This record gives sequence, C-alpha cells and structure tokens, in this order.
Amino acid sequence: MIFPIFFTFFLLLSSSHASVQDFCVADYKAPDGPAGYSCKKPAKVTVNDFVYSGLGIAGNTTNIIKAAVTPAFAAQFPGVNGLGISLARLDLAPGGVIPFHTHPGASEVLLVVQGTIIAGFVASDNTPYLKTLKKGDIMVFPQGLLHFQVNGGGTPALAFPSFSSPSPGLQILDFALFKNDLATELIAQTTFLDAAQIKKLKGVLGGTN
Amino acid sequence: MIFPIFFTFFLLLSSSHASVQDFCVADYKAPDGPAGYSCKKPAKVTVNDFVYSGLGIAGNTTNIIKAAVTPAFAAQFPGVNGLGISLARLDLAPGGVIPFHTHPGASEVLLVVQGTIIAGFVASDNTPYLKTLKKGDIMVFPQGLLHFQVNGGGTPALAFPSFSSPSPGLQILDFALFKNDLATELIAQTTFLDAAQIKKLKGVLGGTN
Amino acid sequence: MIFPIFFTFFLLLSSSHASVQDFCVADYKAPDGPAGYSCKKPAKVTVNDFVYSGLGIAGNTTNIIKAAVTPAFAAQFPGVNGLGISLARLDLAPGGVIPFHTHPGASEVLLVVQGTIIAGFVASDNTPYLKTLKKGDIMVFPQGLLHFQVNGGGTPALAFPSFSSPSPGLQILDFALFKNDLATELIAQTTFLDAAQIKKLKGVLGGTN
Amino acid sequence: MIFPIFFTFFLLLSSSHASVQDFCVADYKAPDGPAGYSCKKPAKVTVNDFVYSGLGIAGNTTNIIKAAVTPAFAAQFPGVNGLGISLARLDLAPGGVIPFHTHPGASEVLLVVQGTIIAGFVASDNTPYLKTLKKGDIMVFPQGLLHFQVNGGGTPALAFPSFSSPSPGLQILDFALFKNDLATELIAQTTFLDAAQIKKLKGVLGGTN
Amino acid sequence: MIFPIFFTFFLLLSSSHASVQDFCVADYKAPDGPAGYSCKKPAKVTVNDFVYSGLGIAGNTTNIIKAAVTPAFAAQFPGVNGLGISLARLDLAPGGVIPFHTHPGASEVLLVVQGTIIAGFVASDNTPYLKTLKKGDIMVFPQGLLHFQVNGGGTPALAFPSFSSPSPGLQILDFALFKNDLATELIAQTTFLDAAQIKKLKGVLGGTN
Amino acid sequence: MIFPIFFTFFLLLSSSHASVQDFCVADYKAPDGPAGYSCKKPAKVTVNDFVYSGLGIAGNTTNIIKAAVTPAFAAQFPGVNGLGISLARLDLAPGGVIPFHTHPGASEVLLVVQGTIIAGFVASDNTPYLKTLKKGDIMVFPQGLLHFQVNGGGTPALAFPSFSSPSPGLQILDFALFKNDLATELIAQTTFLDAAQIKKLKGVLGGTN
Repeated sequence: MIFPIFFTFFLLLSSSHASVQDFCVADYKAPDGPAGYSCKKPAKVTVNDFVYSGLGIAGNTTNIIKAAVTPAFAAQFPGVNGLGISLARLDLAPGGVIPFHTHPGASEVLLVVQGTIIAGFVASDNTPYLKTLKKGDIMVFPQGLLHFQVNGGGTPALAFPSFSSPSPGLQILDFALFKNDLATELIAQTTFLDAAQIKKLKGVLGGTN
Repeated sequence: MIFPIFFTFFLLLSSSHASVQDFCVADYKAPDGPAGYSCKKPAKVTVNDFVYSGLGIAGNTTNIIKAAVTPAFAAQFPGVNGLGISLARLDLAPGGVIPFHTHPGASEVLLVVQGTIIAGFVASDNTPYLKTLKKGDIMVFPQGLLHFQVNGGGTPALAFPSFSSPSPGLQILDFALFKNDLATELIAQTTFLDAAQIKKLKGVLGGTN
Repeated sequence: MIFPIFFTFFLLLSSSHASVQDFCVADYKAPDGPAGYSCKKPAKVTVNDFVYSGLGIAGNTTNIIKAAVTPAFAAQFPGVNGLGISLARLDLAPGGVIPFHTHPGASEVLLVVQGTIIAGFVASDNTPYLKTLKKGDIMVFPQGLLHFQVNGGGTPALAFPSFSSPSPGLQILDFALFKNDLATELIAQTTFLDAAQIKKLKGVLGGTN
Repeated sequence: MIFPIFFTFFLLLSSSHASVQDFCVADYKAPDGPAGYSCKKPAKVTVNDFVYSGLGIAGNTTNIIKAAVTPAFAAQFPGVNGLGISLARLDLAPGGVIPFHTHPGASEVLLVVQGTIIAGFVASDNTPYLKTLKKGDIMVFPQGLLHFQVNGGGTPALAFPSFSSPSPGLQILDFALFKNDLATELIAQTTFLDAAQIKKLKGVLGGTN
Repeated sequence: MIFPIFFTFFLLLSSSHASVQDFCVADYKAPDGPAGYSCKKPAKVTVNDFVYSGLGIAGNTTNIIKAAVTPAFAAQFPGVNGLGISLARLDLAPGGVIPFHTHPGASEVLLVVQGTIIAGFVASDNTPYLKTLKKGDIMVFPQGLLHFQVNGGGTPALAFPSFSSPSPGLQILDFALFKNDLATELIAQTTFLDAAQIKKLKGVLGGTN
Repeated sequence: MIFPIFFTFFLLLSSSHASVQDFCVADYKAPDGPAGYSCKKPAKVTVNDFVYSGLGIAGNTTNIIKAAVTPAFAAQFPGVNGLGISLARLDLAPGGVIPFHTHPGASEVLLVVQGTIIAGFVASDNTPYLKTLKKGDIMVFPQGLLHFQVNGGGTPALAFPSFSSPSPGLQILDFALFKNDLATELIAQTTFLDAAQIKKLKGVLGGTN
C-alpha cells in the first residue's frame, strides 16, 4: 500500500505559500509593475488563460491603409504575461501598408503565411535592409528600429509577427507626429518637414495645432 | 550648400569603433559565449542575414511520429542572435505527434495555421492544461514545462512555434531517456518504468545498455 | 559638536519615499508578479526574514522513494525573494532516489555533505552526464534539463542543492505524466509508453483515466 | 472622408486592457516588488512625472564632510521607475569629501561640471584606480566597488553621478560600521580596527555599543 | 610575523584563472557579442580606461541643426562596456535642434547644465510629453520612444544625456528616412509624405532615389 | 524497421551549426565578455566540467584570521559559466573570522554544516542584521552589502555560501583599504580613520604609502 506514502512526499513539495511560479497569468485588476501585470491566483487559472483565438479573425482592412494589426500582447492575452513573448496578426489587402513604426520594447520576427510582403527596416547607421517575402519566409526586425510592411502582390497578404516581449509597444511614426496636438511649428523644427505637409497629414489623421 | 555640414554632424556620431549594436548577426566561426554567438563584422552583414526561408518548406513526416520540426534558431538563422526570439515550423501528418518535450531556455507560443492540433502542458503542480486548437488559435507553453502537440484531425496540420530565446533548446523526453547509453537499471530506478518497457523503447530509438 | 551636522547629511539621503531596495522580503499577502512577491514594508522586516532553519531538519524518507526534498524557495524563505537564489535539502536513505525531474526556472548546483550520490543530467543532444559524487563534491545541472540523484552507497546521504532563482520550480517527470487525469491513451501517444505501463504507474501515484 | 476609417485602425490597437507599458511611473502608495514600484494609472501620468527639478538646487555643505548628495532615484523621481537609470547631484565645498561608499545595485558614471575632483575606486584584487577629474571629465565606478570623491581644488566642485539602476542604493562605509549599535568588539573582530578608533568614530557619528 | 600568513589567505582567493570580473573594459580588437565587447586582459587595464575626457570639449555647432552630439558610449569609452550605462554631450547653439530620434536600446535621462531646452517625447498612445527645462532640471525619455531637444532660449545650451545601456544606439528620424537610397515612392507609401517633400529632404541630407 | 526513420527526425533537429546552448562551459583560453567566458567546443565537454571536488578539501586556517575561503566560481569551476550560480567553502577555526566584505556581483545564501557561526550584514540604512547560525541554518546576504562571519563556538565551523552569479566577486574591506599603495592621508580623508590606525593595518597587511 504505497500510495499514501508517496502522497506525503508530494505534500512536502507543495506546502507553504504554494504559488506555482511556472507562469504569471495577468490579473488586470491588481497593480502592474515594471515586469508586467500582477499574477492571477493559481486557483483561478484555467487553460483558457493560455489560449487566444483573436488572431484567427481577419482584421478589417477597409480603411485608408488597407491593413489591420490585431495584437495578442499581455494586455489582450493574459497567459503571456511575464514570459518574454507575444504575437500579433497583420492583414494587408492589395495595396495595404503598415507604415513606418517601431516597437520600443521588443525585437520582432515576421512570418508570412499568405501572399507577398515587401518588408524593411533601417539600421542606426541609416542603412536600409529590404526584402520581398513570400509565403513561409521569416524576417527579423531588431528592437526599436524603424520598419514597415507593404503588400507586395495583387492578393491579400497575411502575416504573424512574434515579439520578444509580452508588451512590445507600437509607435507608428505618422501617428506620433501628426495624430496629436504637437504644434506644427515644433514638428517642422524637429523633422525639417514643411508646415504645409504637416498640416495636411494632421488633417488626415485628426491632429490639431 | 548645406550637405557637407550635415555630413560632419553625422560623422561625429559614427566615429571611432563604429560597431552598430542594433543587432549582432551570428558569426559561426568566432567563439560563442553565454549570451550567444559573436557578432559578424558590420561590413559583412546583408539583408539575407535577417531573412530565413527554411520554414517555407514542409518537413518530411514519413517517419514514426508522422511529424517534423524545422528550427529557425540562432544556429540556423543568424539574424536572431542576441535578440531574444526565434521560430520553428511543425508539420503534423494525420496521426502525427510531437511527443512530450521541454525547451529548457524559452517559453513558446504556438500558432496553428492549418488543421487541428491537440496541445497541452503540465504545470509544476502536475495540473495538465489541454486544448484543441484550430486554425488561428495560439497557445502559450511556459518556459521549461513538459508539453506536447498531436494532430487532432484527419488532415495535415501546420503550426509555427515562436520562442522567447534565440536558442530555446529542445529536450525530447523519449530521446533523453531512451536514445543513449543510460543503463536500463538506472532508468528504471529514476523513472519507475519497467525494465522491459525501457528496453523496448531503447530498441525503437537506438539506445543501448 | 559635529554630530547634528552629520545627521543632516544622512537625512538628505534617506528622505522621501524611503524604500530600502537592498532587498525585497516577500509579503505573501500582497499581489505577486513576474519578478516575484511584493515587498514587505521595511519597518516590518527583521533578521528572521533573512534566516531559515527548515533545512536543519531531516526530511522523512520513509516513503516509496526513500528520499525527501525540503525546499527553501521564496515561497518558504521570504528573504530570498527577488535575489536570484534559493536552496533546498535532499535526504536520501539507502536505496533512496530523487527521480528524473527538471527545474524550469533555474540552474542547480548540488553539494554533497554526507554519503555518496550518483547524479546525472541529460543534455538536449541526449548525451548523459553521470558522476558518482562524494562528500564535498559539487555538480551543476544546467537550467531546465532532466536530471536525477540516487543514493550511491549503503548509508544515508545528505545534499544541498542551490538554485539560480528564488522560485526555481520543480517538475517531477513521473508526477507530471502519471499523477493527474491525463488520459492513458494520450500519454501513450505522446510518450510511446505502453498503456499497461502507464496504468500501472497511475495506480502507484494516484493518477486517473 | 478618410478620417473615421483611420480611427478604426487606431482603435484596434488600443483596445482591451490598454496599459501603455512604454513606462511605469512609480505609484508610491501601491505595493512595490523586486522590479520596482507599481505603475501609476496611465490616466494620472503627466509630464511632471518625467521631469525632476531637485538637482538644480545646491545641497547644503555646511556639515562635517563639507559635501552633500542629492538623489534623484526612483524613490524621489517617479518617472525613472523600471527604466534602468537614475541620477544624483554631488556638491563638494573646498575640502569636501564623499567618503568611501558603494552602490550595491548599480554602476556609476560621474560627470564633473565644476571644479576639480579626485576620485577613485578599488577593484576586487585591491588595485586602486585614482584620477584627478576636471570639468567635463567622466569616470565610471563599476557596480558594488568601494569608491570615493574628494574636492581636489580650492573652489566648490559640482558633479552629477548617473546610475545603471533606478534604485542604486548607497552604503557609506563609515555609517555602516559606526552609525548603529553594532558592538565595538564585534566591529574590532571583523575589521581589525582598534577599539579606541571604533569608539571615537561611533562618538562622531552617533553610534552606540 | 603575521604578514606572510595573511598573504597565503589572499593567494587562495586570487588563484586559478584570475579574471577580475568586476568590470570588462572593451577590447576593440577581439570579437564582440550580444552582451558587448570582449574584455581587455586585466594586466592591460589602467585607470585611463575608466576615465573619458571627450565630453569636456564643446561639439561643433556650425552646421544645419546648430547642434552637436558627442557620444561616450562603449564604442568610445571602453570602461563602460558591460556596465549598463553610458553618457553623451549635447551642444545646442541658439536656434539649435536635435531632431526627432530614438535610442533603440536604452532609456535616457537628460541633465541641463546651461541654458534652456524644450524637450519632449511621444508615447505609444501618441500623447506628447513636453517641457521647458532649465539649468539643473532632468527629464527621462523612456526606451525606444521618439523624442527631441530644442534650444529654448537665445543663448547656447549644454546638456548631458545618460543612458541605461553602454550601447544605446541612436536612430535619427530624418536620416533613417532621407539619408540613404530608399526609393521615394516606397517612403511615400510608408509615411504618407508627398514625393516632393521626400525629394526635397533627400536633397538636403544626401539621400538618393 | 522504424529506427532509421526516427533517426531522420533527430538529424533535422541537430543539423546546422549544432551548438548545444544548454550550457557554456568556460574556455579559459578564448576571450571573455561581459556575460562570462567563451564556451568550450561541445565536443570537448565532459562530465568533469560539471563536477568540482575542490570544496571537499578543508582550507588552511593557520593564518591571522584563522579562516579560509575556497571559491568554486566560474574561474575555478568551468561548468557554472553563464548559469547564474556558484559556490564556495568557508572554514573557520575556533576564533576564526571572515572580516567585513562584499560581493559586488551577487547575493549570497550561507549554509552552515558544522559548528556555530555569528553572521551579519548591514543594510543601506545602516541597520545591522545579526544572527547566530547553527548547523542546518541558512542566511541570505543581499547583493553588494557589507557582511561578515565569525566562528561563534569553540569548535571548527564549516559553511558553504552559494552565490547568484558565476562570478560574484569578493571585496574584503581591510584589503581594499590597507593592502595596496593608497596614500595614508587619502584613506584618512575618505574613512575618518586616524593615520596611526591606517599605518598600523597597512603594516599588518603589506600595504605601502
């Protein structure tokens, strides 16, 4: 009758403040800190915290950029909190563009699963690295560098970027410059763009001043 | 004539030992260290270091597990060296299985792009977390925990795991136990498996002793 | 009479929100996060938070494995929270075995202080590294790899593993596979073990299905 | 009329639990953890959280060391929480001294902006590294090593140390040894200093026993 | 005669492969890796490796931006290699501007030591954070976010940015977009700027295509 | 005949630049970097790289401090390189003392295996934390803080410190101050010790000036 004895052995290991720190599923209601969200109580964790189905749905590309980004970051997908990784989905209709942007907190690897995508990043020494990616190709965009993706064919393209952080961030260049109330003159001074150009894009994107 | 003056400004920034440490493309011929491979000289880096096409090719699943794993880790894809991320490709023919395994150095997010996959991991408290994943679903497997993937339908399945490290490692349970010269008696003692069971699997996998 | 002036100097440094972040003693009642437990208020910290006596007591080895593991992880020993280190105690009666297991979140160095221990780990390329350790020997088990310890002599053995994390985790292979409700058929499919073998061990360990 | 469509694109990205994890401004009232303070709610963050004016005010050097340290660590400057960096201000009147001290949690780079400072650190192999620093010079003190700064001229000196952590800590050797109730005999035993010397400095600094 | 005995104690500690890993002064001739440059042999390290005087010299601001950036990163200042910190110097003549840029690998704290500087950054949610900084003020720019500095007065301004990395990187927006051979059409597509605007700035900055 | 097919599956995984990055055994002849030593070629690694017997030998305590420290850091024990952990051995004869010291790069947990040890550390706020440790007790010393160990009984004591780094460093206060050529006057100025006291200890420890 060995079962009870073995059980004793197990109890020893799981005794005390038995936080299973294999993972830290995000508890959106508790305080967050520099390392991420607080952890959900182990007893409330279910397999559904580790699975996300939102990337299975095509994003709506009937917009000016003919493209959509659907994130599965820690803010949407609680299971990746604290685990150093997250994903997203890119839909690019024909002519679609993900304009120049950066992820301040992560490197990215883009996986193309449908169509053709012209992708590129620019290094700190201003060298551009461009490639036309086909189905099955992957391309890495090092952390924090400006990069873009453009549909390179006449058919819809679908790609999945992976990130080296559960909260990679996303700063879209045009939005950062034109989709707020930064004074046109200040933008002109710090970008060398003409005031007319700035005002035009502020108009398109809803910026003021 | 402002160009030369601007150029001066630029030179200042790029002067001296001008290593562009935006990235560290692996140089497989120089020594590697705990943080990864040495960096290729910047002058030798091209866009092809940042792009990998090996995941576009279906793995050969005509084997006993009816499955194949194709890695794009730092050892295969030099551009991810030092960037905290890598990918792989899973092909699962009908009946295909990626048997229980761990990645000692990374968490994983699995993206299903075709077919149906039954996936699961077991936490440190022995709780299993299982889910049948459909096209577009993602599931996270926290670092170091035992997990598996099984084709859940009658058609081929295709999935792409992403990892939170450029060198996640891969320890397949059966290989670790049975595909080497560990003495049968020692395995029996440390796994509670019967000697006959061990010898049978050693036979299948090419282990000895 | 210089004392008051010096005191002023000190006050400057300790002013404001004077959290002493030399350490972060675990407060088990506040939320925990990916980096560990919340910190106890400095005013409540005493030397007893930094000392743990639980490893001085021999574990009960009158069980099926003739062995016991006593952890001093952050969940038991609040002083190590956030400090990247923890310890445990291994008692191995004659014939005692710590079966194959992994620590998903830490590397381990085992120190033998009494008796003889046969220890080993298996690398990702399936190479086993085995050694008979005597009193005073230490052996390192790299993070996440399967390893075991067996009493190698006729007398009790005592060892102290140190870990590179305050919460290293512990996944015991047999428990992960057999001490839960994973379906026998699924285990067979993902381990290649025979159903009879699985059912036998489920019986021993209290698993179902 | 493209504005509304673009807006849709933006909403997608900011949906769900929209924590902007670009930064984590310290919330001093919520629990802190090993990685720092909890984050202030995004809606309460203002530019003033990212700006600190306390270093613009000269410290009071009318004290025994003729010097003052003014910190802008995470405990004073909430914007640096979680960002791996902080600053301070050193004022050294003629004859002023920042006595031997360490920062347990950070490396330091000292920038001299006025006057002359003799600075030095001692490495683990006991080699001292000393230099007389002039206006504009910078010197690095590697993490955790004993170092000091002394006014090297007849005029006030001003310097700004930067640290590789938002909470570098500051342990002043004389205070650690003499400004508490450690028994004189124990200090003598663990420093080889004479009891008379210890009692003299305890007297100066307000220590007891 | 106790000296020789003590010496024995010391020898024990410094025996074997006596790398002093207090620091890792950059050896620019050996391979570099993801964590930085290789370390200079301890015997070749001198105090001058830890001191840098290049920031004491005003940058040349007779250029189009009326500003200069002088870095003291690991590539210029070998002593900070591996230590998580570096500095630079900003000179801003009246009317001077450091245009929008990012540091892909570091957060920055700017210290104003002379004059007035208008500084700002834009968060991922497009909120701008702007402030006019006076002498002694410090402002933090979180990692990877677009930011700028502008001389806010009629006199020269001087500031010293500190970074949370020895190799923070510097990507200047205008240079990344216009100072290379990226096709005008592609830039237009990925920035929404007019082709004429792009060509104009390419002309100013020396870009082609 | 399934063996060859399985073998194919295995080859796929181990193909290419097959660095097993489970571990990085130190190669003392190749360059080291901020993250540690370069890795030995996998083919040259043996189990002996992971085992160290040097801690099984009592240190020589016939010296002035009646104590000995025997390190098993990465410089002595190549297997711990890159793994975030190391150990050492402390021998304390009756009356033995490990004088005040710090480990600049690691937290420590001390395990007492024989005898009685009085141990203590001083926090940044100058609070001492002292405890008399008996066999089996463990005590943690947070990173970078001054601490000491003293034999607390009339019999030899033996203890094993574990560290949260493979290269924790060791700065012994008396050696840093007195066992080199730092000028007596400068030491007096930066420690407030009397010149006579300094000269006396320089004499004992072999310092000059």
